[in-house]
Amino acid sequence: MEGRIGGSGSNVCSYSPGLFTKKATIGSRIMNLQETFNQIAQLDISGYGKDFLLTWEKSGDEIKATLFLAELFREMHRQGLTYKTFDSGLAISIFRDKSTRTRFSFASAANALGLAVADLDEEKSQIAHGETVRETANMISFMTDVIGIRDDMFLGEGNTYMREVAEAVQTGYEEGTLHQRPALVNLQCDIDHPTQSMSDLVMLKQTFGSLENLRGKKIAMTWAYSPSYGKPLSVPQGIIGLMTRFGMDVTLAHPEGYGLIPDVVDLADRQAKAGGGSFSVVNDMKEAFNGADIVYPKSWAPFQVMEKRTELLKAGDTAGLKSLEKEALANNARFTDWECDEEKMSITKDGKALYLHCLPADITDVSCKKGEVSKSVFDRYRKDTYLEAGFKPFVIASMMFLGRLDDPVNKLNEILVKMKKRF
Amino acid sequence: MEGRIGGSGSNVCSYSPGLFTKKATIGSRIMNLQETFNQIAQLDISGYGKDFLLTWEKSGDEIKATLFLAELFREMHRQGLTYKTFDSGLAISIFRDKSTRTRFSFASAANALGLAVADLDEEKSQIAHGETVRETANMISFMTDVIGIRDDMFLGEGNTYMREVAEAVQTGYEEGTLHQRPALVNLQCDIDHPTQSMSDLVMLKQTFGSLENLRGKKIAMTWAYSPSYGKPLSVPQGIIGLMTRFGMDVTLAHPEGYGLIPDVVDLADRQAKAGGGSFSVVNDMKEAFNGADIVYPKSWAPFQVMEKRTELLKAGDTAGLKSLEKEALANNARFTDWECDEEKMSITKDGKALYLHCLPADITDVSCKKGEVSKSVFDRYRKDTYLEAGFKPFVIASMMFLGRLDDPVNKLNEILVKMKKRF
Amino acid sequence: MEGRIGGSGSNVCSYSPGLFTKKATIGSRIMNLQETFNQIAQLDISGYGKDFLLTWEKSGDEIKATLFLAELFREMHRQGLTYKTFDSGLAISIFRDKSTRTRFSFASAANALGLAVADLDEEKSQIAHGETVRETANMISFMTDVIGIRDDMFLGEGNTYMREVAEAVQTGYEEGTLHQRPALVNLQCDIDHPTQSMSDLVMLKQTFGSLENLRGKKIAMTWAYSPSYGKPLSVPQGIIGLMTRFGMDVTLAHPEGYGLIPDVVDLADRQAKAGGGSFSVVNDMKEAFNGADIVYPKSWAPFQVMEKRTELLKAGDTAGLKSLEKEALANNARFTDWECDEEKMSITKDGKALYLHCLPADITDVSCKKGEVSKSVFDRYRKDTYLEAGFKPFVIASMMFLGRLDDPVNKLNEILVKMKKRF
Repeated sequence: MEGRIGGSGSNVCSYSPGLFTKKATIGSRIMNLQETFNQIAQLDISGYGKDFLLTWEKSGDEIKATLFLAELFREMHRQGLTYKTFDSGLAISIFRDKSTRTRFSFASAANALGLAVADLDEEKSQIAHGETVRETANMISFMTDVIGIRDDMFLGEGNTYMREVAEAVQTGYEEGTLHQRPALVNLQCDIDHPTQSMSDLVMLKQTFGSLENLRGKKIAMTWAYSPSYGKPLSVPQGIIGLMTRFGMDVTLAHPEGYGLIPDVVDLADRQAKAGGGSFSVVNDMKEAFNGADIVYPKSWAPFQVMEKRTELLKAGDTAGLKSLEKEALANNARFTDWECDEEKMSITKDGKALYLHCLPADITDVSCKKGEVSKSVFDRYRKDTYLEAGFKPFVIASMMFLGRLDDPVNKLNEILVKMKKRF
Repeated sequence: MEGRIGGSGSNVCSYSPGLFTKKATIGSRIMNLQETFNQIAQLDISGYGKDFLLTWEKSGDEIKATLFLAELFREMHRQGLTYKTFDSGLAISIFRDKSTRTRFSFASAANALGLAVADLDEEKSQIAHGETVRETANMISFMTDVIGIRDDMFLGEGNTYMREVAEAVQTGYEEGTLHQRPALVNLQCDIDHPTQSMSDLVMLKQTFGSLENLRGKKIAMTWAYSPSYGKPLSVPQGIIGLMTRFGMDVTLAHPEGYGLIPDVVDLADRQAKAGGGSFSVVNDMKEAFNGADIVYPKSWAPFQVMEKRTELLKAGDTAGLKSLEKEALANNARFTDWECDEEKMSITKDGKALYLHCLPADITDVSCKKGEVSKSVFDRYRKDTYLEAGFKPFVIASMMFLGRLDDPVNKLNEILVKMKKRF
Repeated sequence: MEGRIGGSGSNVCSYSPGLFTKKATIGSRIMNLQETFNQIAQLDISGYGKDFLLTWEKSGDEIKATLFLAELFREMHRQGLTYKTFDSGLAISIFRDKSTRTRFSFASAANALGLAVADLDEEKSQIAHGETVRETANMISFMTDVIGIRDDMFLGEGNTYMREVAEAVQTGYEEGTLHQRPALVNLQCDIDHPTQSMSDLVMLKQTFGSLENLRGKKIAMTWAYSPSYGKPLSVPQGIIGLMTRFGMDVTLAHPEGYGLIPDVVDLADRQAKAGGGSFSVVNDMKEAFNGADIVYPKSWAPFQVMEKRTELLKAGDTAGLKSLEKEALANNARFTDWECDEEKMSITKDGKALYLHCLPADITDVSCKKGEVSKSVFDRYRKDTYLEAGFKPFVIASMMFLGRLDDPVNKLNEILVKMKKRF
């Protein structure tokens, strides 16, 4: 068939070019839809699986496919082209924590693919009525193509819950209860925040020109002061768990006692060694910033505090929680100098490191008296942080598309050959 | 016109076969889309009407058409075929009680037909502002194709409210305020739960092979113990109001004092007599289970308790409600042996009766200390109850389609001739 | 290209007729889709802009285009024709106050154009987390085509907030963060309620036959008694700000001390003078009703009360608010005779003035003991008020279409040439 890419048995193929040739810019770069498609078509994504739960469960090719497809979808959107894939179908979101950008990114991604969003509001459901995770997962999935979950409040729980849901719908599919196996997308858990770290990776690729160009670049993932406590660990863990795979020099910096989940730190170390980059942990923000190409200053709660908080929340120990908060804030207050200010920026590579943040940032004198970043630094990089956030809808759409479809490359080819306008 | 079925004046027609011939399985049975369409096309649904409020207001042909179409839609979904009917349009849901499966079934049904769901959250609306039912019903219906309502809290109110809404939009349509008359679907009221009982009927048809095969089968609709009180009567009423029409031997079992709405019990009796089956009420769970082909053990509140509760809720009598709850729970506690356990299952037909439940069930040692069903029985039938629940989205879509369209058979033919893939 | 209307550089053009010719009725009038399209195509809407925030920021041609297109969309809907424009895309609603009809009108409008509604529930978002308006506006807009906002609680705030959002997405678009500039629609602010006043204008046009026929007609926009206080000023302001542009005799009536925002009153006066009509303010309901062709009796809070209320709300002064409410209600109670009753209706033109209301009305002996309108008057005009409300979804769709598209006339022509059925 003309324009057909890839056999039904495999997603890896050689490709004869020439079908769609429009050139385009992403950020400031010229992007060629055809070329990007070719790159995707040459990757091995045969083992991609249905779910995107942790970036380190995906192979290098799978990460690349997710990233390239996100860029392709974004470029199509910029050109006014549609990549609507489904004629109907549901994308269910389960938010167990507040969210603006991820909520709208999920809605945007689902909508662009042709899916309608249905939010599972656990308060309006019968879940309190003793319903099991397995039952709920099946009951909402009869006509569901994608499930997105944010569950980042309790250490040891969010990712576990996602796996329970995944297993439930897998069994439902195998038993014939479900006609299709919905794809799961982790919209932030206790361990990883893959839609964020992948958006950050797109940002880095576009800023530095290619994934290859990231080799040897120094990224400082550092703790920063915030007048709140209990922020999830998933962003710093997601960053060290992903960026150590691209030959980067990843420096994790935090005050003593603010460590991340040890297993993830070990993983980052192993990955850095295997990938030809480096990974180090320091207790000095300036040391991390020194010569850095990229800085990512962001507050989080110490692992031990999160563990204790999880226990207290489960026990409903309000007094204990108040006391923990007081103690944790007092401890935080010893580190108000962990702020990303002009002085620290000046010691980065040429004084011009790229500043990343998952937003919203705690900006000194804007959203709080003393925060993660000074106003002048944030203002200079505001546009960049918005651009960074803007990749997320396309990253999520890419995860949905690759997870849900049996032969995504062929489907993508079909879509691209049509070059249909969105309106 | 080629492939055209039925004249514009009538939905009853003879049909020349041969247009779409794909074979398919539903559950374990081979299903032929063409054949099912033929069955539907031969039924008299000329008086179907806009609303599906009580199963016993529908003729035998109308019930069959609803059921066959639900099976057809389900089979199309299984085969990856779309039956999207509308290019745009709203399906409004009004939930006056918590819901998981019905909420998602409604969303799934609407979405598959091409309608977007808009939920009327009465707290966010101006309804508190003294707006009448007639006004609200019209204000939300200018571009609305379907309205689904769950209102099961107060005896004497839910179904009445639905009829008020139906009358309001009918008047609005006749006055020209509305361009179309939205179809209403009862998503559970104080009297009936037609989307549940119809799903149960599909389950029985598929289990026993045909509606004809249900003749003479014994179904035990029995009360079961639950550590809660105030559960609606609509499920047991829906079951005895529907199953007595198919020549089944319907046994309603409950402790003394746990009766249903007398009018519905009378109706069941009359229908059983007319249909060649039987209907009996007993006060012994074992007597009902004895030799039963199907058992449906499910808790509900006594009619009198619901009546009193309705009064107290209206009066805002919190103390009275607490006292009623205490009294009702104490009364319930006398019947903890009304549990569907292995011993009782062993006396059903060959010890292998089909277990039905609308879910979520109160499972002993799982969701409560003592409940409606033992863990081992529920586990054995868990897959079946999920399958049973899975018919609901398609039953609702069928009710929407048959209620909303003027010539559903012709439209269905159009859709089937296209055999379009969902993605 | 056959059937093509207008060049890409201009929306003003001459038109060769004959492509789509179906005749139709709106209300009782025959409407010709072709003719209405021709009228729109001849208007200068080249400066329409992205946002619809205040009717008086729009030129006469722009108001007419909005109105004619609303009528055209409504007629298409009546005929079962679709005007779906987008294959995908989001329409975001932000409701900072309760709403039924505007909420559903917005959902209907978006859906008809092919956009999915995503509601920004500020409680479920991270906005409390110190996020700026600029940031939130961009974060929700990456794939968003339309934003609708209701923010009518605080004087001096609602419209200002809308402009902040508009500026934020404009900057985002110019910076390349957003691929498209979402169109904003004011769903009611502290100053204007353009989707309401434009619906009212459609009602008047259809009742009196044409905009030209409104010349010299007397409309009485009068305060009326209600047992509540703190109702927004946007409806009366919207009416005097719009109707004074069509050569009407606009009389604003209210008890002394119940004045509107002075700037809007001045604007109405200037517009009346420029347009050849008249504008007067009186303190006597009967004087306003005398000889009126149209009456619009509607309660609102005095400007000064709203100003004070805004201060107290911001200060969180609960005691002050209670005292203000008491005082304001006591003051209102002096004017219970400001009711639209049969006696007052009898002194209107031929005793048959058209009664308008934005709904829900406070109806004496229905929704309250003493209200804005007597039961018999409201009942006689109930159908008319429903019809009036029914224009709103189409008015909003028109604002979205004209604001979002670069070449709406050409797109409209494409849609009309297809004459595609909605189902």
